[in-house]
Amino acid sequence: MIKVEKRYSNLANDFLFKTVAEKRNKMSERFDDIIDLSIGDVKLPLSRSVVEKCKEASDEMAKIETFRGYSPNGGYSFLKDKIRKEYESGNISINNDEIFISDGTKSDISNILDLFSSDNTSLIPDPVYPVYVDTCIMKGINITYIDCNEDNNFLPLPDGRVADIIYICSPNNPTGAAYTKDELSKWVDYANYNKSVILYDAAYEAFISDEKYCRSIFEIEGSRTCAIEFKSFSKSAGFTGMRCGYTVVPKELVFEDMNINKMWTRRHATKFNGVPYIIQRAAEESLSYEGERECRKALNYYRENAKMISKTLQSISVKFFGGENSPYIWMKCPFGMKSWEFFDYLLSELRIVGVPGVGFGKNGEYFFRLSCFNLKDNIRVACERLKKLGDVKS
Amino acid sequence: MIKVEKRYSNLANDFLFKTVAEKRNKMSERFDDIIDLSIGDVKLPLSRSVVEKCKEASDEMAKIETFRGYSPNGGYSFLKDKIRKEYESGNISINNDEIFISDGTKSDISNILDLFSSDNTSLIPDPVYPVYVDTCIMKGINITYIDCNEDNNFLPLPDGRVADIIYICSPNNPTGAAYTKDELSKWVDYANYNKSVILYDAAYEAFISDEKYCRSIFEIEGSRTCAIEFKSFSKSAGFTGMRCGYTVVPKELVFEDMNINKMWTRRHATKFNGVPYIIQRAAEESLSYEGERECRKALNYYRENAKMISKTLQSISVKFFGGENSPYIWMKCPFGMKSWEFFDYLLSELRIVGVPGVGFGKNGEYFFRLSCFNLKDNIRVACERLKKLGDVKS
Repeated sequence: MIKVEKRYSNLANDFLFKTVAEKRNKMSERFDDIIDLSIGDVKLPLSRSVVEKCKEASDEMAKIETFRGYSPNGGYSFLKDKIRKEYESGNISINNDEIFISDGTKSDISNILDLFSSDNTSLIPDPVYPVYVDTCIMKGINITYIDCNEDNNFLPLPDGRVADIIYICSPNNPTGAAYTKDELSKWVDYANYNKSVILYDAAYEAFISDEKYCRSIFEIEGSRTCAIEFKSFSKSAGFTGMRCGYTVVPKELVFEDMNINKMWTRRHATKFNGVPYIIQRAAEESLSYEGERECRKALNYYRENAKMISKTLQSISVKFFGGENSPYIWMKCPFGMKSWEFFDYLLSELRIVGVPGVGFGKNGEYFFRLSCFNLKDNIRVACERLKKLGDVKS
Repeated sequence: MIKVEKRYSNLANDFLFKTVAEKRNKMSERFDDIIDLSIGDVKLPLSRSVVEKCKEASDEMAKIETFRGYSPNGGYSFLKDKIRKEYESGNISINNDEIFISDGTKSDISNILDLFSSDNTSLIPDPVYPVYVDTCIMKGINITYIDCNEDNNFLPLPDGRVADIIYICSPNNPTGAAYTKDELSKWVDYANYNKSVILYDAAYEAFISDEKYCRSIFEIEGSRTCAIEFKSFSKSAGFTGMRCGYTVVPKELVFEDMNINKMWTRRHATKFNGVPYIIQRAAEESLSYEGERECRKALNYYRENAKMISKTLQSISVKFFGGENSPYIWMKCPFGMKSWEFFDYLLSELRIVGVPGVGFGKNGEYFFRLSCFNLKDNIRVACERLKKLGDVKS
């Protein structure tokens, strides 16, 4: 008789965002002016040049001379070349065969655990993007949590505890906190000392505008022997519905005589058939001169949204983190409310949807995540409504 | 210190198709008229209506009103509806929440093992698509092989041995053999009796033209309590470079009190972010009246190729299997040659590339796989060359 992976029964029953959506949908039946600042999904359309490239690539697929079947393992070099040059512009040198094009960070940061034994311990910040926790549970990896809280500005540093797999997300989801080079160096040194692996989720890197924060872990000396970096076009180019990201696995990553880059190459060749040609062309275009210019415009639009929310919260003296160098505002729930309590209050009183902090971990209790991914007009209305929190407060 | 998944070192060093490609490339440096009948990659362009749909969907992504971000978990219902109706036209009733849109069969038939414990035994036909073997090794699942050979026409039936996970690919890669309803019923009964799961790979189903063969395992009574079906647009619509497939997981699949459909839903939500909107629209279009008409034309083109090769082999009295209801011709190597020996011979003497049967398992020794996925003119030349085997033989 088949034996089922019993660990699935250890997963929390409901995926956080599903519960949020259900509550929102229920309220939508009564009100048509609900503003959703919960999910990190982009709202602005793709840039014109990216769309033109999609159509051009589609036309190529219509002609026998230019039709493309299976993508090369790891992705097309036209896209890898562009990514490599992006790194080079930040003085980081990587090779094309260290870049793996994928359908997104979520898939890769989950699937990477295939390369490691269940017999590892992971260090996961709390609060955190639930996918790290769930995939460790699915795999049977023992989890140690490291507290992120107001005391450490939600940016914990190594505290002496040893773990094999270290998850770092910077700029952070949900807290918006970002590591500086100095801080990240401490993690790299710690990982090298313990022969641990850092899984570095840089999905929100495009939001960094302040140079003191790291855009890539490969800015840090020693990172090539301990880190894997996950990047995405979801936020930088609005690709949540396009599905493209990439993972950088340095060749120096060797543990127990096994080369992690070679293992990932083998995993890719065996369990994945690549990203659609049209999508890889679109991603390439987003890194062109014109593509980047247009994508930057969209990023600035979201940045202004984040600023608007930040200013509003400042004006009513609500404490928050993030909002700069990050699309997320991590606010303290007013009136000492717990986070689901504040969720219900905000939804019913101000018809704004956010994400209760406790959904990301115990240290998220009394906190709340707002996303800047919405249209400016909606953000404006949301800010007007948020101001009412100040009226109640005073 | 991080512990690596040591099982990766049990994998065969080179992926079969990589070795084939390397040998081909080396020969290409000397000759420019090599005809590649090795890999199962389509050559005809996408149908006109599918391409138009891609461009239309791209334009939707350019406008704020029609832009789409994250896909719903499991895929868009516009595509699921079409797939459900396809099943209904074959008198098979399934629900939308039993259909999971994915980036292809390779990913899903690999990732499905996430739901099962390592403590299972799988039954894998030999010869076989190497991905089944490799993913079982990666997961640590114990493999039992079942012989496919001339004696059983490469269509083995249950032989009394018990296994937990049964891989069936019909029409088969590499042998081209397809199961009838009666034969498949025996597998379903056996699986239900032993509480095993059948992983049914129907990636080549579109090639079936003879009604006696199964197009879906769900044609078989009792299959909903034991089978998961994997289908792909790769061959039916020429989507190898588009990446779209789907998996059907019936709700009746319950083992050890765990519902496999719910587990797969959770796995999808946690480790995958769906297929690009543009691609899902393209797949939808391939199932429209016009789309199906055009895709059928391409399938017939490949079918004629297979017939041409089959007739050629018949004319020189070379024994083979498949070639009907399948894109593959599974030929016996002439002159009693072993399969790599014949590979080298065919490449150097006739400048044709195929896949040595032994690459698919020990029972593939003395056999050779030819694919019909090439342009008619190339197939014609290949057939002229293959005829020379007859001259040598006589």
